[in-house]
Amino acid sequence: MPQAAEYQHRRQAFMKSMKPQGIAIFPGASEVIRSRDTHFPFRQDSDFFYLTGINEPDAVLVLLPDAEVSEILFVLPRDPHAEVWHGRRLGCEQAQSLSGVAQCHALNELDTLLPEYLDGSEHLYYAFDQFPVFEAKLREHLRQLRAAPKRSKTAPPHWHDSRPQLHQQRLIKSDQEIALMQRAADITVEAHKRAMQSVRPGMFEYQVEALLQHEFRHHGGAGAAYGSIVGGGENACILHYTSNSDELCDGDLLLIDAGCEYQGYAADITRTFPVNGTFSPVQRALYEVVLASQEAAFAQIKPGSSLPKAQEAAIKVLTEGLIKLGILQGDVKTHINDLSCRRFFIHGLGHWLGLDVHDVGNYDADGAPIKLKPGMVLTIEPGLYFAPDDDTVPEQYRGIGIRIEDDLLVTADGYHNLTAGVPKSIEGIEALMSAGMST
Amino acid sequence: MPQAAEYQHRRQAFMKSMKPQGIAIFPGASEVIRSRDTHFPFRQDSDFFYLTGINEPDAVLVLLPDAEVSEILFVLPRDPHAEVWHGRRLGCEQAQSLSGVAQCHALNELDTLLPEYLDGSEHLYYAFDQFPVFEAKLREHLRQLRAAPKRSKTAPPHWHDSRPQLHQQRLIKSDQEIALMQRAADITVEAHKRAMQSVRPGMFEYQVEALLQHEFRHHGGAGAAYGSIVGGGENACILHYTSNSDELCDGDLLLIDAGCEYQGYAADITRTFPVNGTFSPVQRALYEVVLASQEAAFAQIKPGSSLPKAQEAAIKVLTEGLIKLGILQGDVKTHINDLSCRRFFIHGLGHWLGLDVHDVGNYDADGAPIKLKPGMVLTIEPGLYFAPDDDTVPEQYRGIGIRIEDDLLVTADGYHNLTAGVPKSIEGIEALMSAGMST
Amino acid sequence: MPQAAEYQHRRQAFMKSMKPQGIAIFPGASEVIRSRDTHFPFRQDSDFFYLTGINEPDAVLVLLPDAEVSEILFVLPRDPHAEVWHGRRLGCEQAQSLSGVAQCHALNELDTLLPEYLDGSEHLYYAFDQFPVFEAKLREHLRQLRAAPKRSKTAPPHWHDSRPQLHQQRLIKSDQEIALMQRAADITVEAHKRAMQSVRPGMFEYQVEALLQHEFRHHGGAGAAYGSIVGGGENACILHYTSNSDELCDGDLLLIDAGCEYQGYAADITRTFPVNGTFSPVQRALYEVVLASQEAAFAQIKPGSSLPKAQEAAIKVLTEGLIKLGILQGDVKTHINDLSCRRFFIHGLGHWLGLDVHDVGNYDADGAPIKLKPGMVLTIEPGLYFAPDDDTVPEQYRGIGIRIEDDLLVTADGYHNLTAGVPKSIEGIEALMSAGMST
Amino acid sequence: MPQAAEYQHRRQAFMKSMKPQGIAIFPGASEVIRSRDTHFPFRQDSDFFYLTGINEPDAVLVLLPDAEVSEILFVLPRDPHAEVWHGRRLGCEQAQSLSGVAQCHALNELDTLLPEYLDGSEHLYYAFDQFPVFEAKLREHLRQLRAAPKRSKTAPPHWHDSRPQLHQQRLIKSDQEIALMQRAADITVEAHKRAMQSVRPGMFEYQVEALLQHEFRHHGGAGAAYGSIVGGGENACILHYTSNSDELCDGDLLLIDAGCEYQGYAADITRTFPVNGTFSPVQRALYEVVLASQEAAFAQIKPGSSLPKAQEAAIKVLTEGLIKLGILQGDVKTHINDLSCRRFFIHGLGHWLGLDVHDVGNYDADGAPIKLKPGMVLTIEPGLYFAPDDDTVPEQYRGIGIRIEDDLLVTADGYHNLTAGVPKSIEGIEALMSAGMST
Ligand SMILES: [Mn+2]
Ligand SMILES: [Mn+2]
Ligand SMILES: [Mn+2]
Ligand SMILES: [Mn+2]
Repeated sequence: MPQAAEYQHRRQAFMKSMKPQGIAIFPGASEVIRSRDTHFPFRQDSDFFYLTGINEPDAVLVLLPDAEVSEILFVLPRDPHAEVWHGRRLGCEQAQSLSGVAQCHALNELDTLLPEYLDGSEHLYYAFDQFPVFEAKLREHLRQLRAAPKRSKTAPPHWHDSRPQLHQQRLIKSDQEIALMQRAADITVEAHKRAMQSVRPGMFEYQVEALLQHEFRHHGGAGAAYGSIVGGGENACILHYTSNSDELCDGDLLLIDAGCEYQGYAADITRTFPVNGTFSPVQRALYEVVLASQEAAFAQIKPGSSLPKAQEAAIKVLTEGLIKLGILQGDVKTHINDLSCRRFFIHGLGHWLGLDVHDVGNYDADGAPIKLKPGMVLTIEPGLYFAPDDDTVPEQYRGIGIRIEDDLLVTADGYHNLTAGVPKSIEGIEALMSAGMST
Repeated sequence: MPQAAEYQHRRQAFMKSMKPQGIAIFPGASEVIRSRDTHFPFRQDSDFFYLTGINEPDAVLVLLPDAEVSEILFVLPRDPHAEVWHGRRLGCEQAQSLSGVAQCHALNELDTLLPEYLDGSEHLYYAFDQFPVFEAKLREHLRQLRAAPKRSKTAPPHWHDSRPQLHQQRLIKSDQEIALMQRAADITVEAHKRAMQSVRPGMFEYQVEALLQHEFRHHGGAGAAYGSIVGGGENACILHYTSNSDELCDGDLLLIDAGCEYQGYAADITRTFPVNGTFSPVQRALYEVVLASQEAAFAQIKPGSSLPKAQEAAIKVLTEGLIKLGILQGDVKTHINDLSCRRFFIHGLGHWLGLDVHDVGNYDADGAPIKLKPGMVLTIEPGLYFAPDDDTVPEQYRGIGIRIEDDLLVTADGYHNLTAGVPKSIEGIEALMSAGMST
Repeated sequence: MPQAAEYQHRRQAFMKSMKPQGIAIFPGASEVIRSRDTHFPFRQDSDFFYLTGINEPDAVLVLLPDAEVSEILFVLPRDPHAEVWHGRRLGCEQAQSLSGVAQCHALNELDTLLPEYLDGSEHLYYAFDQFPVFEAKLREHLRQLRAAPKRSKTAPPHWHDSRPQLHQQRLIKSDQEIALMQRAADITVEAHKRAMQSVRPGMFEYQVEALLQHEFRHHGGAGAAYGSIVGGGENACILHYTSNSDELCDGDLLLIDAGCEYQGYAADITRTFPVNGTFSPVQRALYEVVLASQEAAFAQIKPGSSLPKAQEAAIKVLTEGLIKLGILQGDVKTHINDLSCRRFFIHGLGHWLGLDVHDVGNYDADGAPIKLKPGMVLTIEPGLYFAPDDDTVPEQYRGIGIRIEDDLLVTADGYHNLTAGVPKSIEGIEALMSAGMST
Repeated sequence: MPQAAEYQHRRQAFMKSMKPQGIAIFPGASEVIRSRDTHFPFRQDSDFFYLTGINEPDAVLVLLPDAEVSEILFVLPRDPHAEVWHGRRLGCEQAQSLSGVAQCHALNELDTLLPEYLDGSEHLYYAFDQFPVFEAKLREHLRQLRAAPKRSKTAPPHWHDSRPQLHQQRLIKSDQEIALMQRAADITVEAHKRAMQSVRPGMFEYQVEALLQHEFRHHGGAGAAYGSIVGGGENACILHYTSNSDELCDGDLLLIDAGCEYQGYAADITRTFPVNGTFSPVQRALYEVVLASQEAAFAQIKPGSSLPKAQEAAIKVLTEGLIKLGILQGDVKTHINDLSCRRFFIHGLGHWLGLDVHDVGNYDADGAPIKLKPGMVLTIEPGLYFAPDDDTVPEQYRGIGIRIEDDLLVTADGYHNLTAGVPKSIEGIEALMSAGMST
């Protein structure tokens, strides 16, 4: 399917869910100030991007299923002077052809046209609270319509959050989305492999982060999809450690949790490996437990199964391992029932992945976990973390944090691991690192 | 001077400018959402960082020159659980010792203590409109004080914008600031040199950007101080071209405008050089004009002089060059008076540099340009841009954009070029590029 | 029906219109500052009063049709100290018995309980934009619920304007409402009669207003339901003339448009009569036209008819009269078709009447005028106004304004005029005035 | 002094207090919704009215002491169509001549002119938090000026609350103000006398309120300056009892606290008298104590004295009286020191009076009470209240509330009682009531 047709398809799916005389409004993101007159790198709103493919600030999409023209896009118009200063713009013509909308207007017409679209509509679909500046304007339009019954104007009396429906849609990835996610995964695989090959004692964590960033951007990604975590030694026990400021020490493990954003889509890989290239016996023992738990979880990933089922499988393996290593004492079954391992496996097993790293989509529906379906993409990321000052744990384990994370596409008969390319067996890691060291 | 003493010194300088019974409030920056539940990399507010050196979100500094305790800092308190999830915090003790304030409280005490500080104060110093969420709270405190005259409460009746005074202070850099700016410059010099050595026809602009990012972060910088501009060919004529999405072509020039942020301080270097390593005669001729104009401008940088004087010098050289090359026709003096060259040199000659790339500080005072003084840092960045479709210009020049930018510290007897390390003579550039190609 | 049962009935009717898992929130009015620390006399929000009968500030009604407890009221709690200062309060017990709600809480529990009610609800009914302070809180509750999916919280995704449904309900008055409206009408009749008897040349308009106010309050009304209009001479041509500052002159007409508010319900009567007690021939001629047009309109008031039909009838009579008096020239039919009389009859013929003087309820539905039904109450108020400087009109008519307005209840077989007690025939008026003058 | 000159004088006094390059902005009040599309009677902002005498909504006064035109007024422009509907407007010409300002513009020019006035000003005087809608616009103007340093625009960096200075000014009344206040007092005296003559057992409190309202408006006042308090029996013990809903009973006292607003100025009189026209011995005994305390307080009212001194005098008399009546037991001095009488005299002795009933102006300065000066107007209103359920008090006193309040102008050698015309001696009251009953 050509791009424009794909976006049309997505918008039509949304419009089918709307009630009669409905209007849906999707604002894009605006530039965000970083400091004084500089901005953060522009990031489009995921919902808007999903529906249009347009990557420019301040655009707005309006859907009017029952109108003659049912898809209207507003973008910054071409402006030679402004573009010399601030960069090229698509303009109406290109934006229309790229997104496939029926009509495209210059942004400055929005204040005139939006009240006309709203007037007489019955159902308004919008993501309340997400765009405060736009929403203030929208609310003012609605207020003015409501205040003008004598001119026969009416504001839509029914308002619906646009997110639940759209996010349910986003949960199932199309072939085109899967292709982009595979590309994001591939770049991320390259980056993790380069990091494994490059790490040596005495390097600083931020130097590893620099390598990852280089790979992400070098291959055409926008950069990191989330704050890269590069934590040596105890730092691995801080789940969102992003300062990446310390020196890497001989004998420590290094945990890297980082993913590239490519055409809006995120990858999300975690690997944990020895700074000096060789796992110590203690590290090895713990690592094997985490890896086995990931494999047990993988086995549950297939249509009809669910994330909690995979988590159950992982917890069983983790609990058995912790008992075997003497970190937990007593009966396996009791510890599984008591979720004792959650003291050390403190986060969830995984999450949806897509345009957002913690992607949209419910985890429950009608009181039960969402069942997996082909086209869903999720991460599986078991981990064990032993706080440096936790004296209930044998000393040799304290200050160790291990996590292994891959990105799985649910397929008709199981799953496809998008990120299998980075070694995670102990032998695989040690072989790659040893090859890196010898260059 | 140890760090804490330096920050104390800065705060005392500000407090000296305050009126009796004054209170100054400086909020720090907060985390900013990038998409859904992910944030942009945290960037501290420059004013807050200048006064405290604290690089954590949501902190607040209160100055009360006439109180017993005149410097009070509020920070996120230590919290083992939150820190496992979101990363380490300084906590009160470390924040106090780092910043040298007299007192440090946990942030959750602010709502109780701030009204007490405000009550009875006469003069409030604050950066209105810059921190909407904080300001809503502050305004509510003020409203409640004003509404309670029967409990003898009073809100400060005089409010002063804290920025004019503080920004005048920030305009003159201390020795410690200069050392940090030299470090930011040094890293940026390395990055530009690596880019020069690496560029080849067929590379993509974003791959050059990837190299710059790698260098910035590898040497301990936070990243790019502003959106890196990597523009090949015509793209050089777009002043803030940051999409960096095109392939570099044999025969084109490449303009790179990029700088590292180190410990909050920005460097800002621009270089323009041939993608294939050798300037063509036309490129050479234009380049020499821009370079000569930069040198003429440099000669004006010294105490007592001003940015407009440097700009005059640059304009003279640019105008003479444009006439010599046949791009302008007629009398030099007339063209200088008419500022004819401004059609091609379309931006300002330079700007203050510091914690912000376009740093704070006025350019005029009492109707006259600010006089240069030792300790000021500014950029000098002449340029010439010929639009690809400008048929008033001889064809060979169309689509060429050239800018050369360095960062100058004003010294007692002239200036020190912080960024002299990147070659900019034609010979220097060609030599470095040729060395790079042979590796 | 006892009062509490009546309110229950109204709430149940509203709840029947709600979708499953719905929540409706109706805030009451708050005190409004008049100047510094004084308030305007408290006026309850009409919708809230209609549903509860509670006449205290800051109360909130919550309806949860699908919950065990489906009607919950929040009121200011009893507080001996506060009541000594600010007046007695109902407190929970009395408020519950008066309104018949299932549960009543102290207002300070609202912030805790409201999020619990909202969490998990699917449909929110509320009057957006009407209560900015309350709405800010409500929006914050919704935001926090939406931000806590990990704690399984959800905000209602569907929001509905509560007004269309409730206002349709308010359009048909119950027997209890009609009794209150008759009482408001009776008091207003007394007031207009006293004014007619008291007016003499040389009185000031505000002195007539003072008489009306005295009557309204003396008989237990809250005061004027809207700004009383007491306009002598030309002032009658200003539709909402409320300054009432001029002296009444011998030979002029006086137009009084004023109504009492009783237990929240408005009356709305207009009479026009000669300041000196005797209509001049010119005044008499015009007055007879307006009165005849009102009678023609009355004849159309019955179930199945509509306000536009009554207006048509009035316009026919007015047009014929204007032609007969030489103010319009030419063919009657043409002038009726052209609505020529609208130059002098510049406002609508009437409006719904109830808790608001311009009461709620649509005038059109599905593109056609609302059909009259028993239980509706409306005013019929034709008028003619000749601007003092309108030289297209024969001189003797200039500066004259006449309006006659009564309040009609639609009954099974026609209408009942609630305000028939104030004379409006020329003889009736002159007789009453003459009786008044002789005392 | 003609009116315009008086307002000029007031504005000049304020401008003298402003710092160089200052701008002062005084918005007037706007119409306030009472219910749906009806408004409360318009009340001008007191500060705006004090400076202009203009009594229309939405006007704005700008003072620019250092500009060529230093006083600029913005008002709603003449508009024949709008005036037919909403009432007459002054328009620019009349508003200018009435207020004496140098220049008057139509309101719709404000958005253009205000930024020009603000640009380059150094000091902004404004009443923050008092006019939220206007302030949002003002803040937006300031934000835009601050954001445009490249177009050499600047927002005033120093903001000053305009109220402290203006309210100090308003504390001393001019001859013209005193004349208006005497008129407000005279009308109020008439109203209280009529009430005294009319009250009988079986009347309802609201019927007495109706009489007061009639008098206030009949004599050209705007109405009640604050919610009239008409409290029979125990209701007198509720300080702001304004529901006025009960029947007056034989044997009870009636407390009336009510004042007329005339040309913006308030009177404030309280009298307490027997419903049946004759004080009982118990009532008489208590009343004499309160009256004596008022007289003792009056004796302290003179230049150089203060409100606390008057309060001390009143407390001494009240305490002695309470001991004499057996309500307090023990030593007078101790009870005076302990302020024992404050259990029954629970409010302040008095307050400033002027455009607001609780008029502006500080009560303390530099830690000491404000000294009385000629031209100040204040109320003196001692009272005693015995709760119906206070069983620490002899039974015969329970449920009695007495307050006596007059309005005093401080003169060169003492005071002038503006409200002496209403009887307050027991004999005077009984005589007037007896005369009233016999008509
Ligand atoms: Mn993850
Ligand atoms: Mn620059
Ligand atoms: Mn009416
Ligand atoms: Mn008082």
